[in-house]
Amino acid sequence: MTKVEERNQMTRGEERAHGYFMRMALSLAIRGGTAVSPNPKVGCVIVKDGQVVGWGYHKRYGGPHAEVEALTMAGDRAQGATAYVTLEPCSHHGKTPPCAPRLVEAGIRRVVYGMMDPNPKVNGRGLEILASGGVEVVGPVMEDRCRWENRGFIRRMTLGRPWVTLKGALSVDGTTCLENGKSKWITGPLARQKAHLLRAEHDAILVGINTVINDDPALNVRSVDGDSPKKVILDGGLRVPLDAKALKDGERIVFTSTDAPKDRVEALRDMGVQVCPVPSQGGLLDLASVLSALGGMGVNSLLVEGGPRVLGAFVDRCLGDMVSLFISPSILGRGLQLCESFEIEGMENRVHIRDHSIRRAGNDIWLEGCLACSPAL
Amino acid sequence: MTKVEERNQMTRGEERAHGYFMRMALSLAIRGGTAVSPNPKVGCVIVKDGQVVGWGYHKRYGGPHAEVEALTMAGDRAQGATAYVTLEPCSHHGKTPPCAPRLVEAGIRRVVYGMMDPNPKVNGRGLEILASGGVEVVGPVMEDRCRWENRGFIRRMTLGRPWVTLKGALSVDGTTCLENGKSKWITGPLARQKAHLLRAEHDAILVGINTVINDDPALNVRSVDGDSPKKVILDGGLRVPLDAKALKDGERIVFTSTDAPKDRVEALRDMGVQVCPVPSQGGLLDLASVLSALGGMGVNSLLVEGGPRVLGAFVDRCLGDMVSLFISPSILGRGLQLCESFEIEGMENRVHIRDHSIRRAGNDIWLEGCLACSPAL
Repeated sequence: MTKVEERNQMTRGEERAHGYFMRMALSLAIRGGTAVSPNPKVGCVIVKDGQVVGWGYHKRYGGPHAEVEALTMAGDRAQGATAYVTLEPCSHHGKTPPCAPRLVEAGIRRVVYGMMDPNPKVNGRGLEILASGGVEVVGPVMEDRCRWENRGFIRRMTLGRPWVTLKGALSVDGTTCLENGKSKWITGPLARQKAHLLRAEHDAILVGINTVINDDPALNVRSVDGDSPKKVILDGGLRVPLDAKALKDGERIVFTSTDAPKDRVEALRDMGVQVCPVPSQGGLLDLASVLSALGGMGVNSLLVEGGPRVLGAFVDRCLGDMVSLFISPSILGRGLQLCESFEIEGMENRVHIRDHSIRRAGNDIWLEGCLACSPAL
Repeated sequence: MTKVEERNQMTRGEERAHGYFMRMALSLAIRGGTAVSPNPKVGCVIVKDGQVVGWGYHKRYGGPHAEVEALTMAGDRAQGATAYVTLEPCSHHGKTPPCAPRLVEAGIRRVVYGMMDPNPKVNGRGLEILASGGVEVVGPVMEDRCRWENRGFIRRMTLGRPWVTLKGALSVDGTTCLENGKSKWITGPLARQKAHLLRAEHDAILVGINTVINDDPALNVRSVDGDSPKKVILDGGLRVPLDAKALKDGERIVFTSTDAPKDRVEALRDMGVQVCPVPSQGGLLDLASVLSALGGMGVNSLLVEGGPRVLGAFVDRCLGDMVSLFISPSILGRGLQLCESFEIEGMENRVHIRDHSIRRAGNDIWLEGCLACSPAL
């Protein structure tokens, strides 16, 4: 029986209950934030006779999985219960034993899942273990929402690279930086705070060397709660000053060209900075290689904070998934545009932003949306 | 007694009634549209014992005023009634006899007005005539709304120039035209239709010669109902092709430099085009002179449709009152920016857009707001 037929067999009441408890499981999954990376975010709710008897979520990488947390809370009440889990239960030994057999052993009668695990080590095997253990399997339920919350994990599992969010602050006439280099501050305090929330929601944050030299950003999370992401700098010629704020602490990764000066490489490595040589073309580091390397390091999600040349390069190479733009309702006149290094020949080559949302952030406008070139999730 | 004290003496019930009927009068006033220019838009409602016994609005320049229309409908019922009128009744003979004495003669007991007439020929004299005629005068009521609807008339009466709306279509990264000149189409069909509505709401529409040469726009109102505005072209060197679509019909005005080739001037005048020489500086026509001349021609409202050099010049000289921007959720990369000819040295010189509104126009974003440099109404 195909999945669609399974869903069609659900009664209206069952469908409503599935949506209700899956939403609950999703709200738990989201709590994992970036602390679970490179793992996916997972939430689980165990329901018996319409009552929640157990719930849990994956709290941090290496810690117990959502299903185990929920089963532990449910105890004997798991017997004959339904487990709602946002992601297909795992079938393989990772940092912890696999969850699918655990659910069978606990006597779970039915598993409602949100999405299949894109991890090639699982990808349906978890559901098979459940089914062959006599557990009724229902799903996917609320698949789009579940996949959206794990878009980073999906990107890494299927394309070997992180989900890439391009962040920018610009005026309504498209200027992100005056021609004399000035850019502080285009947006207001609330927009800048939201930008820190964005940082906290990503595993890594990337800037170009010009941004480091011009703005000397600390690249950490301030003014909001959250872990600071890994700091990634693109620096073909290793011009990064050793006393740059971004190099002070945290996990620091500098991508450079294969012919970067050896003494600079050593000096950075001595400071505990990871220096990764990647191929370059025409003075520009190969972004696909950079993203693959970050994928290999377990980075699910990457926030690109520019400047305009780096943002333009990501758009130009179709390597951005999403934009998050803070637009000031003011006119700055001619200057460096958001994607300065990107240029097209005709309107048909433009990069559309699909499903965009517009919100206010203080007096600024916050536009988010997916780039049309971003592969479907 | 000051006006504020008068208002304070109103009971809550009276205030509510005043707001109710003034809103009705305003909705009538708006119907006048650009057909009344260079006159202001005026609406009038006559109320007796809580019932509307007459209403009217100024329908077209030269036609009867709102008060006369309403009095005619009310007939004898005007005796002892209250007249709500969005603008102070006129005291001077223009195309028609003055309205203030007419209201007195008709036996109107009370006049509630929305705003004083900024016309120096009136400016309080209409209210004086009413008061000395024994009519109770109440107001201003809903003054901000009334002044907003007549912002063009107010600009012309107080500054001698029209209200200037800067219209632009651009991508979210601020490109209004590719570097190779291509700009068709940045926004979708609904946004372009809204742009035609904007044209219909203005007395005149202005473009630079580059726009005429590159795009050859007809500059008329299409795809929506409404009168086509006067067409204004800035053309220092009189390079406008005589077969340009914009020169085909309607009222056509070309501003040029004082040393424009005489034969070109004659050729245009032979076609019925009004050619106005204005001072120029550094190859750019003096925009303040252009606006004064348009004010002298009775233009209350001007829509500037660019291109980027003309829009930038208006911003640079603080001669724009409002922006109406259609923003496509797409990335066009480097190109001509909305205000290409405007450049600032530091963030403190930026031009803020105040009280901005954001709406959707199809898939595009429609941002409107007043420029901070626009004098208060």
